[in-house]
Amino acid sequence: MLGCGTVGRALVEILDQRSAAIEEAVGIKLEVTQIAVRSLETDRGPAVDHDWLTTDTMTVATSEDVDVVVEVLGGIEPARQLILAALNAGKPVITGNKELVANHGAELFAVAARNQVDFLFEAAVAGAIPILRPLRESLLGEDITRIMGIVNGTTNFILTRMTEDQASYAEALDEAQKLGYAEADPTADVEGFDAGAKAAIMASIGFGVEVVANDVHHEGIAKIDQVDIAFANRLGYRIKLLAIAEVFDTEQGREVGVRVHPVMVPITHPLASVRESFNAVFVEGVAAGELMFYGRGAGGSPTGSAVLGDVVDAAVNLRAGTYRPVPAGPPAMIRSVDEVESAYYLNMEVGDAPGVLAEVAGVFGKHGVSIGSMEQTGLGEDARLVFITHIARERALRQTLSELDELDSVRAISSVLRVIEA
Amino acid sequence: MLGCGTVGRALVEILDQRSAAIEEAVGIKLEVTQIAVRSLETDRGPAVDHDWLTTDTMTVATSEDVDVVVEVLGGIEPARQLILAALNAGKPVITGNKELVANHGAELFAVAARNQVDFLFEAAVAGAIPILRPLRESLLGEDITRIMGIVNGTTNFILTRMTEDQASYAEALDEAQKLGYAEADPTADVEGFDAGAKAAIMASIGFGVEVVANDVHHEGIAKIDQVDIAFANRLGYRIKLLAIAEVFDTEQGREVGVRVHPVMVPITHPLASVRESFNAVFVEGVAAGELMFYGRGAGGSPTGSAVLGDVVDAAVNLRAGTYRPVPAGPPAMIRSVDEVESAYYLNMEVGDAPGVLAEVAGVFGKHGVSIGSMEQTGLGEDARLVFITHIARERALRQTLSELDELDSVRAISSVLRVIEA
Repeated sequence: MLGCGTVGRALVEILDQRSAAIEEAVGIKLEVTQIAVRSLETDRGPAVDHDWLTTDTMTVATSEDVDVVVEVLGGIEPARQLILAALNAGKPVITGNKELVANHGAELFAVAARNQVDFLFEAAVAGAIPILRPLRESLLGEDITRIMGIVNGTTNFILTRMTEDQASYAEALDEAQKLGYAEADPTADVEGFDAGAKAAIMASIGFGVEVVANDVHHEGIAKIDQVDIAFANRLGYRIKLLAIAEVFDTEQGREVGVRVHPVMVPITHPLASVRESFNAVFVEGVAAGELMFYGRGAGGSPTGSAVLGDVVDAAVNLRAGTYRPVPAGPPAMIRSVDEVESAYYLNMEVGDAPGVLAEVAGVFGKHGVSIGSMEQTGLGEDARLVFITHIARERALRQTLSELDELDSVRAISSVLRVIEA
Repeated sequence: MLGCGTVGRALVEILDQRSAAIEEAVGIKLEVTQIAVRSLETDRGPAVDHDWLTTDTMTVATSEDVDVVVEVLGGIEPARQLILAALNAGKPVITGNKELVANHGAELFAVAARNQVDFLFEAAVAGAIPILRPLRESLLGEDITRIMGIVNGTTNFILTRMTEDQASYAEALDEAQKLGYAEADPTADVEGFDAGAKAAIMASIGFGVEVVANDVHHEGIAKIDQVDIAFANRLGYRIKLLAIAEVFDTEQGREVGVRVHPVMVPITHPLASVRESFNAVFVEGVAAGELMFYGRGAGGSPTGSAVLGDVVDAAVNLRAGTYRPVPAGPPAMIRSVDEVESAYYLNMEVGDAPGVLAEVAGVFGKHGVSIGSMEQTGLGEDARLVFITHIARERALRQTLSELDELDSVRAISSVLRVIEA
């Protein structure tokens, strides 16, 4: 093991409980032999044998006594160098490092394949949920057209508190921080960076192409307020931060669009009922239809469980002298978010003068954005228009917004959310 | 292929679409070479080449030209004999035959292991949903304590119509039959036999023991009426037919209880939002926590997709000269349903005489069944008592019911449903 933080310790503890059962099931006895750590002094609980600990990371990665390497350091370096060294030494590597896989996946997949060893990272996406292995294996024959995931537990917790307890965004974030779900600096979660990395990995595996974190368009949840939540509830939706990866077949070939942003999901959709800090990944395939995988997306034990599943797999393959290459191919042709189509929810504060609605509706019409439903609430200073559009192209919607913004009668466009139609 | 019905034809069609993509991903070209059918005359659509067809089933199962055998005949015989012959000829076998696996799994697993070939049957449980492979592989290191599934689409469709459209059971069944979801004789679905076979398979794989269809206690949905549906809705539950497999650690060792019956599921539980003919399997593990797998449980394409996933897996393993034995072990110690504990919903028609409630409550108390909540509705002839109990043992509940049945003041116990507590 490289690293021994929360996930590493959980892995050691689960293995302590389960190694006899695993040996009975597959005939392989899994043993921790070496753990590379920064400090030999830190207390790591009773399951971690002090004799395993060393500060010599490279020796652990390449030692002849080590058959399978587990990387739980996190971050890009030195994790990347150590994993490359382990793979080049002919050792299968397991990691849960989403940042690394989302940025350097192609290099790692290639080095693993060249050395004919497994490189497995189930824990990098949606914690305990078996999603990458089903995509890599069970659904390898399936033409997958879309993957939509609630893959960030922190933001799902915040949105759940805002929906169920009418908490403000600030209150819900504060509660998430107190419970340890959110970091002191919550940017990576609430602005969609964390979900974006996971989206890139799911797109790579699901569509068999290379998608990196930087290919992902992302918008966060910080602007969502109780007005949006209340409207969503009344209209029969839940607001969720979704990571969406889609394919588009064009004359030039297959394009891939990957984005993370808040979405209004109909309450009858399976993703709408994913509450609290749970994760779920919704997969659409041509033959299989709609699938969803649900569970704990974070936490030591759930993540450790996913790592252990991969370790067992790697060990079984290693004994059989085989491995499974990662089914991710050449760099994807990325479709710009401007070209993606969606229905939209717009919530704007308007003046109460006669003719406002006609003026606003005229701007929609000019850009070919068709209105599905409209609601006017409040009077005078508090007047507000809420629209749900039919499917429109992002570019047309942005042009509509920018023109609406210039109208004197539109005080502010408070919210723009994508909508999944029921 | 042995057989060429709905699933077989769908498999040929999907393969027709996807064989190039599969070859690109894993370097193996999958080709249908022989299909054993009863009649060479039946029209099987354009994807099925007439040259593949033969009536000689045993030749297909054992031919040297065949690398992987797919059984889509259904039923016990001749499927069992043909699969045994194929396995003994060293060929991996894929099937979606739940009846066969739930009754003769141990024999088939043993013969497959002896011949060191794969025996895969993802399609036998919950159609397109990858559930057996996650249980067999991803969660092999996990201590799984409970599996609860909505694994019969017909009954879930009926219950959805009863809940959402206030249809009667007869009306909903009639609609299911018209849509082709239910057979003319719906017994296997509505009485829980179909779900029971799937429960036995899930328990075998999830817990690593042998559980057969006959070990499963089952009760159907035919007695559920609008009174129950309305009460469930008002109390915040949905009624679902669940297949439940649980482990119980006792001094004598680990016991397994497997049962199929209607359950009141809290609306906040992920299983409650599984609507229409969809299936879902909810898995609880010590380290992973709660997981759920959702999707299409039946239909040609979804089932064909699951079969194809297994075919790719078997082909990859065959080329690597390896296989994965089924992780099911010795016969389970079955816990009688009498010993299983649950909370219960009881709905009874009572006389309106003074003292009825005290009399009824006394019977509960005598058998140690503690009442969680009670509601009295109606007056005179229409008086009705509804109870939700705390967790009680099935045997104590049955004793309570039989004594209540003898009371003059209790006209009829209309419904008894298990309740999952929120």
